[in-house]
Amino acid sequence: MYSVKDLQSLISVEIENEIYSLNQTEPKNLYQPVGYALSMGGKRLRPVMVLMAYNLFSENVENAFPVALAIELFHNFTLLHDDIMDGAEMRRNNLSVYKKYNENIAILSGDAMSIMAYNYLLKCNSTEPAPMIRLFSQTALEVCEGQQFDMDFENRLDVSIPEYLEMIRLKTAVLLACSLKLGAMAANAPEKIADQLYNFGLNLGITFQLQDDLLDVFADQDKFGKKIGGDIVSNKKTFLLLKALEISDDSTKMIILDWMNKSDFDENEKIRAITEVYNKLDIKGITEIYIDQYYKLALDVFTEINLAGETMTELIQLANLIMNRDH
Amino acid sequence: MYSVKDLQSLISVEIENEIYSLNQTEPKNLYQPVGYALSMGGKRLRPVMVLMAYNLFSENVENAFPVALAIELFHNFTLLHDDIMDGAEMRRNNLSVYKKYNENIAILSGDAMSIMAYNYLLKCNSTEPAPMIRLFSQTALEVCEGQQFDMDFENRLDVSIPEYLEMIRLKTAVLLACSLKLGAMAANAPEKIADQLYNFGLNLGITFQLQDDLLDVFADQDKFGKKIGGDIVSNKKTFLLLKALEISDDSTKMIILDWMNKSDFDENEKIRAITEVYNKLDIKGITEIYIDQYYKLALDVFTEINLAGETMTELIQLANLIMNRDH
Repeated sequence: MYSVKDLQSLISVEIENEIYSLNQTEPKNLYQPVGYALSMGGKRLRPVMVLMAYNLFSENVENAFPVALAIELFHNFTLLHDDIMDGAEMRRNNLSVYKKYNENIAILSGDAMSIMAYNYLLKCNSTEPAPMIRLFSQTALEVCEGQQFDMDFENRLDVSIPEYLEMIRLKTAVLLACSLKLGAMAANAPEKIADQLYNFGLNLGITFQLQDDLLDVFADQDKFGKKIGGDIVSNKKTFLLLKALEISDDSTKMIILDWMNKSDFDENEKIRAITEVYNKLDIKGITEIYIDQYYKLALDVFTEINLAGETMTELIQLANLIMNRDH
Repeated sequence: MYSVKDLQSLISVEIENEIYSLNQTEPKNLYQPVGYALSMGGKRLRPVMVLMAYNLFSENVENAFPVALAIELFHNFTLLHDDIMDGAEMRRNNLSVYKKYNENIAILSGDAMSIMAYNYLLKCNSTEPAPMIRLFSQTALEVCEGQQFDMDFENRLDVSIPEYLEMIRLKTAVLLACSLKLGAMAANAPEKIADQLYNFGLNLGITFQLQDDLLDVFADQDKFGKKIGGDIVSNKKTFLLLKALEISDDSTKMIILDWMNKSDFDENEKIRAITEVYNKLDIKGITEIYIDQYYKLALDVFTEINLAGETMTELIQLANLIMNRDH
């Protein structure tokens, strides 16, 4: 069985080959941006999840490369279009696609990536590709729904915690879940186990996003890639903010809302003030409880399906990789 | 066998139902724009082509409704994103989606439509859906390629006629071809006939686009929906313009290029001047020869496959519908 590290190396080589071939393909203004978008990827978490799930049932992980590439293409398509929507000029220390090329090229290259994801999925020589395509396509639509809920939340102050959890389930968790299940399906795994891997990925995905929210405020600046407090500055409706609004008394709530309404402010001052509120309300402790609960839900899967010790180790290694952040 | 008119009515009811259900679906900001985009459609040419091809082999056309809807969703997705890219504020006398809502909503709703097209295709209870999805997905990517070539042409003066024909094959013709072939495949038609219907649609599609180019300049203003000469005003690389640049002598070419370089001009004067050049070069006659040739290529299909008289009549009726314009 391959280690997470092995799988990362294997899929990185595949993606490099894909980028090379994209750069030779006409029309260049369509396919080079696709290659550029793929070249920015970090830990290749989702394709590694495909391969790892496949590897639980079969050694020939190269058979699942097309599925892994499909998921990586789709994920990077969502990042590409999200960057246009968010006006995000940078991604992982590179210019985002719409900044490097232009917005029209970014829209169309994103469209092509989404379609190419299906084409890759169709290359997988599974016995019956339709159920895999059905799961992927359903998941893809859910990711769009999650993104729309997230955008809707920008204009709302009354987002509840259940609404927030549903949004991150759709926007983030289902694609991680789908990655694992597709890998299992490509290896013709028993349906029950494939479903359990889906649940594992789903709960891990929610854990992952909650931790992402937490790290924005409470990470160690030295280890954190971005500036601490970015979500606070932009009034992003994170779990932390929504929980604080939920549990604070009227006067504390006013402090939060006042800061959210300011258009002219010192960023560090705002970060300090909101963090102080979070500390007063022990938002960090509360968030960590949620994180632990979802993490436990994820690991509960192992009590329901029988997995070899080696497999367990790999899945827990994967969970650690995910929780380590830097996606 | 259903007439073109019958099929138009049948699919219109289906689309109305779809719009109604989209308007009830959350998140509303994702699905209402999809319904709005669908509500603007004209003659429903492509879904009618799906149903007609299906109807050549089977009476139960309702079995092909999901495929017809998939094609209509995909086609309207391309219009939606094209309108953003072109900055087109109006579509068929309505505000375009990005104008009615906003650009972010338009990008994301378009993404969802493209994915929903696959979901509809997967609903078709054909014996083997994978080959249908493969054809659709390949076609979808070709449409993106065609759109990129079209955008690339904006910045070029040396576009050759073969390059132009390849662009319209990708941007317009393959989707018409795919619509017919998918209808045939959904009815388990013999592969050879499905392929010939594809060729019929492909050549008809090229004919259709060439006629579209011609009508922009030489249509009867009373019957033409838009202002005559829009392509001339915007320097669009149409067949007419490219042919004129190809065959004109140096002094005539200079007249064209001078008008193309002007940023401040009277639109009617430019239309008059370029039309005069076209008349001098008999661009209308030359374009009509190409139109006739591709139309003949389309009809040649009927000499290779044996079709009942009634079927022939229907397909020629379809060809007339397409050539009638108002897409």
